[in-house]
Amino acid sequence: MSTRLPVELAKSYRLLNHGPTVLVSSAHGDTVNVMAAAWSMPVDFSPPKVAVVIDRNTLTRQLVDASGEFVLNIPSRQLAQATLAVGSASGREVDKFHAYGLSTFAAEKIAAPLLQGCLGWLECRVIPEPQIQERYDLFLGEIVAAWADPQAFSNGHWIFENDSPRSIHYIAGGNFFETGAAFDVER
Amino acid sequence: MSTRLPVELAKSYRLLNHGPTVLVSSAHGDTVNVMAAAWSMPVDFSPPKVAVVIDRNTLTRQLVDASGEFVLNIPSRQLAQATLAVGSASGREVDKFHAYGLSTFAAEKIAAPLLQGCLGWLECRVIPEPQIQERYDLFLGEIVAAWADPQAFSNGHWIFENDSPRSIHYIAGGNFFETGAAFDVER
Repeated sequence: MSTRLPVELAKSYRLLNHGPTVLVSSAHGDTVNVMAAAWSMPVDFSPPKVAVVIDRNTLTRQLVDASGEFVLNIPSRQLAQATLAVGSASGREVDKFHAYGLSTFAAEKIAAPLLQGCLGWLECRVIPEPQIQERYDLFLGEIVAAWADPQAFSNGHWIFENDSPRSIHYIAGGNFFETGAAFDVER
Repeated sequence: MSTRLPVELAKSYRLLNHGPTVLVSSAHGDTVNVMAAAWSMPVDFSPPKVAVVIDRNTLTRQLVDASGEFVLNIPSRQLAQATLAVGSASGREVDKFHAYGLSTFAAEKIAAPLLQGCLGWLECRVIPEPQIQERYDLFLGEIVAAWADPQAFSNGHWIFENDSPRSIHYIAGGNFFETGAAFDVER
């Protein structure tokens, strides 16, 4: 099981602030799915909110519409192959968890599961905005619980040192960047 | 003047897909401003659209509300100090261009200017969605022209080699990451 510690909600936006590609997990009834999303971002600090694009043709969309919940999982480079795979296949045609060797564990506040091996997890409840969901496939969610692997994010800060796992940033095709060197700027 | 080449609109989302922090420039009448935004993302490929959070208390918000336009400028690490500075000061109190040594050049399709020294530029027209603008400070824009420094982005691909300028990803305080090593995953 992934090691995880709670992240205080006021700092949970920091898991997403640098723009990593995420995996969106969702569940409704007995159906569970996961897809990749390069298009997500924070939209507010308090209460913390996120935005994510969930295409209308996906199984994830159907599960999120039905459940009103989703998890943004922040994968490490070790999960890049799986990220590309779950972003390419449909959960209607393949059990992605079985096909790509992904396992899950229970979230605290919602039914959608958390993906093993990720660096951070944001449990979200949909803030209903039917017009933008319909027009733009754009979903807003309130973060109701947040977790991080303390080897990657601790006390509100990412730890991306030489040998620590890093988050990833998708471009197109199979092309990614990892999160690079940290630097500080003085005010 | 920054070297720039046009980016075809179908590939313009790739300037933003990896989640860099951007600088939002705007203009109305004689007033011009620039602010930083960690919260922006693509929302569609064709026509290409973006989403960005523009706080209701900013001068930028006033200019974008009045003009219906903005530019997302993608700064390099060389502009990180300026990025933090323009994200901390208000254009109502200081001429940020003068104060932080920033210069601009003309956009093609809109009146808001492009910032010198950036790696890419997305000229955007607001897609009016008053309800989400008001509730969440969330703006949607259509990309109507896109440009890149060919040393950083060429033929639809980022070039982040050892000595090339890199985009940046803000976390909090003065803490940033640069865009790191590229890697490819086979499907």
